[in-house]
Amino acid sequence: MPTISAKGLSMPESPIRKLVPYSEKAKKAGTKVFHLNIGQPDIKTPEVALNAVRNFDFEILEYSHSAGFESYRTKLATYYRTHGLPVEVADILITTGGSEALLFAMGVTMDAGDEIIIPEPFYANYNGFSTASGVKVVPIISGIETGFALPPIADFEKRITSKTKAILICNPGNPTGYLYSKEELLQLAEIVKKYDLFLIADEVYREFIYDDQPHLSVLNIAGIEQNAIMIDSVSKRYSMCGARIGCIVSKNKEVMQTAMKYAQARLSPPTFAQIASEAALDTPQSYFDDVVAEYKERRDTLVEELSKIAGVQVAKPRGAFYCIAKLPVADADHFAQWLLESYSYNGATVMVAPAAGFYSTPNVGKDEVRIAYVLKKADLIQAVEILKNALEAYPGK
Amino acid sequence: MPTISAKGLSMPESPIRKLVPYSEKAKKAGTKVFHLNIGQPDIKTPEVALNAVRNFDFEILEYSHSAGFESYRTKLATYYRTHGLPVEVADILITTGGSEALLFAMGVTMDAGDEIIIPEPFYANYNGFSTASGVKVVPIISGIETGFALPPIADFEKRITSKTKAILICNPGNPTGYLYSKEELLQLAEIVKKYDLFLIADEVYREFIYDDQPHLSVLNIAGIEQNAIMIDSVSKRYSMCGARIGCIVSKNKEVMQTAMKYAQARLSPPTFAQIASEAALDTPQSYFDDVVAEYKERRDTLVEELSKIAGVQVAKPRGAFYCIAKLPVADADHFAQWLLESYSYNGATVMVAPAAGFYSTPNVGKDEVRIAYVLKKADLIQAVEILKNALEAYPGK
Ligand SMILES: Cc1ncc(COP(=O)(O)O)c(C=O)c1O
Ligand SMILES: Cc1ncc(COP(=O)(O)O)c(C=O)c1O
Repeated sequence: MPTISAKGLSMPESPIRKLVPYSEKAKKAGTKVFHLNIGQPDIKTPEVALNAVRNFDFEILEYSHSAGFESYRTKLATYYRTHGLPVEVADILITTGGSEALLFAMGVTMDAGDEIIIPEPFYANYNGFSTASGVKVVPIISGIETGFALPPIADFEKRITSKTKAILICNPGNPTGYLYSKEELLQLAEIVKKYDLFLIADEVYREFIYDDQPHLSVLNIAGIEQNAIMIDSVSKRYSMCGARIGCIVSKNKEVMQTAMKYAQARLSPPTFAQIASEAALDTPQSYFDDVVAEYKERRDTLVEELSKIAGVQVAKPRGAFYCIAKLPVADADHFAQWLLESYSYNGATVMVAPAAGFYSTPNVGKDEVRIAYVLKKADLIQAVEILKNALEAYPGK
Repeated sequence: MPTISAKGLSMPESPIRKLVPYSEKAKKAGTKVFHLNIGQPDIKTPEVALNAVRNFDFEILEYSHSAGFESYRTKLATYYRTHGLPVEVADILITTGGSEALLFAMGVTMDAGDEIIIPEPFYANYNGFSTASGVKVVPIISGIETGFALPPIADFEKRITSKTKAILICNPGNPTGYLYSKEELLQLAEIVKKYDLFLIADEVYREFIYDDQPHLSVLNIAGIEQNAIMIDSVSKRYSMCGARIGCIVSKNKEVMQTAMKYAQARLSPPTFAQIASEAALDTPQSYFDDVVAEYKERRDTLVEELSKIAGVQVAKPRGAFYCIAKLPVADADHFAQWLLESYSYNGATVMVAPAAGFYSTPNVGKDEVRIAYVLKKADLIQAVEILKNALEAYPGK
């Protein structure tokens, strides 16, 4: 028998994958499951994007340019400039989702055995992309006590070795909802300049900001133009996750030229999805205003309801649509499974993502869960009600 | 300044990329350029596929299952079985193009530093995927003298080391058009069994077969069910390269489970494109009959016209839509550039792909070009006429 690669064997599984069979079983048994575990918004995709696809006009579905339609890149650069980001067409390469942009960013900046520092908890698939790239993740714990603020910069310096090539942040964060302040970003800027590292900023949730503090892009920090790589995506912005369009943006010409070689090898990003994404740039501002108002209300509701439960601690998110909650349980993994397997309240239960999967340090975050507020307000209230009762009933505290 | 990764710097560029500025300049100067260099067919995409996309019916463009729509996989398995391939739903994972399937196959079977044996000349992007995966390509030259038949199996055995994990073939071949015989495939089967290697077969041109010899899939070779991995794509079959849908198929459960982990990390293949690909399975057989008849005529025309040119040698392709021609020039790279930069005949010139880019051994195939017969018959005749006159006029013989 031929053998699977070592990296293939160590590719991590999605943190909620184990739970899926339990949730399916619960549904089959007639229990309603409120999904607090997913990143798939329930918001409608802008009509203008869907209509562009309905009305496409060609007879041959051809490869596009490897960097994406020129017309799309041009319009996208304008979008960024309108939002205050100094982006030219040549700084953009369209990718198959933010996912591929992350993979390209790692391939451009790191070889097998190199190290990337990432504050944790972080988006679980960073582990997958790192493993696929043969790269070692060096985590730095940020805790719920500080609301998941940037860990002290000294913690970063302690972990920098000759193998360290990049720092990766997610801003605002999945799963924390944390929004980095200008001061925090300037600290990071200083350290990447000092050690000649890349600063990769995953900003796919940039438009989901709920309070007065504005979002600051890595592209707006003076002096690190050659270090900064921004990752973006249409998935969440326009609630069109199924398009599979994202981009990698950098002022560093060598980065862009190298990313382009990766892009050429895989030929092109999907054509229909680019049509949708280009048209989506005409989405009226009112769409975003409505969406942000909706998420803000959901966030407020969720945090308020969670705070009422004895023993539950929650860090109020300032962006994205996730939050981490610390529960009065010993093992959130077991609790999440129990919720699906053995619990229901008025015929319903909830599915949450155990947060341990978002940490790369073992045995951290074992009493935390990630809750996505991608449900309507009334459903969120019901879901938290179930959670509250479940915590009272749960034998494994 | 932060530094680019070593693998990023060594990522190969597309073999025709250097030529693109020259072709653009020629066009700007008013010269018509016949593109014999590309793999983008001029055949219409089936209406049934395009209409399915025009008529989609949802309001939220969601992520699909990471392995692709279940409905699509089910129908695709039936398609394979109808074509005599023993494929079950569980053996299929839908990918973003055959390109991603190749990347997954390498990630599943090889670690950084491992080796993959590939008969050359081969599809140039195998180099890119190998470099991205940190894998070393070990080429074995097949020559125009044998029509690019499988090199002697002893040549393979000589190159197998403890690092060798897989043999990759393209059947029928891009750029050679060679169709492996049953005997050749059985020889490969024996060697992969003997040395516990994977046999990855890129069969994206499986439907483009022009003579009596049928295509034999790697999935139909008894005894190597655990070694065989098949790569497929809708790009060429339905002339829908811009969809970006392919798949990886294997009976090896560990392979499929590991590929699934890669698939989960990147979330899902593109949704619109899956709609098109699923609907494309209803394309009537008459479409394929017409397409194959068209390509067969083009091939016959191309080979006949090329054979008339003194000093040109061509291996008659039995599949796909490419052929390699050996020209009476010292350096086909220079010739290809000269064609665009300094030559025109009745206001037109041709763009060809220098074949050196399809060999990984340096200085091999320097007098060869790859010609794609993706143009209409009349255009092909004109293009070869230009080539003939150009070869007479070319100073660099
Ligand atoms: C933080 C973060 N980055 C990147 C992605 C990748 O998204 P996509 O590939 O759909 O653009 C996601 C998706 O959930 C995410 O949460
Ligand atoms: C031999 C071969 N394999 C794979 C591919 C990748 O095609 P795609 O990613 O469009 O499926 C191509 C495209 O030209 C090819 O020629």
